[in-house]
Amino acid sequence: MAHDAFYKLFLHELSGLYSIEHQILEALPDMIQSSTTPELKDALEHHLKETKNQVKRLDQVFSELGEEYSGEKSEGISGILEEGQEIIKFSDYPDRVKDAAIIAAAQRIEHYEIASYGTARTFAEHLNLEEIVELLQKTLDEEAEADKKLTEIARGGFFTSGVIKKAMEE
Amino acid sequence: MAHDAFYKLFLHELSGLYSIEHQILEALPDMIQSSTTPELKDALEHHLKETKNQVKRLDQVFSELGEEYSGEKSEGISGILEEGQEIIKFSDYPDRVKDAAIIAAAQRIEHYEIASYGTARTFAEHLNLEEIVELLQKTLDEEAEADKKLTEIARGGFFTSGVIKKAMEE
Repeated sequence: MAHDAFYKLFLHELSGLYSIEHQILEALPDMIQSSTTPELKDALEHHLKETKNQVKRLDQVFSELGEEYSGEKSEGISGILEEGQEIIKFSDYPDRVKDAAIIAAAQRIEHYEIASYGTARTFAEHLNLEEIVELLQKTLDEEAEADKKLTEIARGGFFTSGVIKKAMEE
Repeated sequence: MAHDAFYKLFLHELSGLYSIEHQILEALPDMIQSSTTPELKDALEHHLKETKNQVKRLDQVFSELGEEYSGEKSEGISGILEEGQEIIKFSDYPDRVKDAAIIAAAQRIEHYEIASYGTARTFAEHLNLEEIVELLQKTLDEEAEADKKLTEIARGGFFTSGVIKKAMEE
């Protein structure tokens, strides 16, 4: 009985991932269009492609389990995306500062995905669903890499190459 | 001008942190009460104490900057906490499975904090606010440690000591 409940919770988490990815797919184009630093634009465009592939990977997960996603909306990612959009669309920040806000929003998104895929991966491990573990781990690795890239852009190149630094000295 | 805008964005992020911590302070007692695994209960109780201290640290940040927080609500954490509470309060999962759901919710909270503190720390670095960087880094390290502990409980002890495993075999 607890096994069934745990499997049900696992499916709930998987459906959550599906909703998360679809909401991100909708939000990313706006974030890309609002970015001005080429390095940031590239990183987000790359992540958009990755996200499309991650959705396919989730389709594969559901199909291998012979299950269907519930269609429930993930409220966690909705809040994160809304607060990101608000600061990007309705703030009067100069372009480069807006870029910094976009990075902040993107890293919250990445971390939400890291936590969510991490949970699903761990649940799959304990359900001995090896093939599913592998699929989820692949996406988890991509999310961690995307977050690392954004940190690099924020801490390193983005600033040291002078984007914000120069702007601040003007 | 861009410097002022960037500083304004930094203050926005700091006010966000304040709202995040206060919302977490409100949500944690329920999560602790709903937990049944002692290891998990302990970890969350420890985090509640840490969170109280982190709020004091933020007070110190605002006081050193001579600024006040805006009182704006962080919508990102609201969504995460709501979805966590829903699954804990309104699901009919057995206790041990509920514990797994609590860990999932707690790790989303931790990751949201990691992303948010990471952003604020990086912004403070570029504003050359060394003392503030140090304060924010301290909290960031605690959040990363808390997340690691939860992963250990989820992947290691929590399951291998039989909590979910036993439950699933029953």
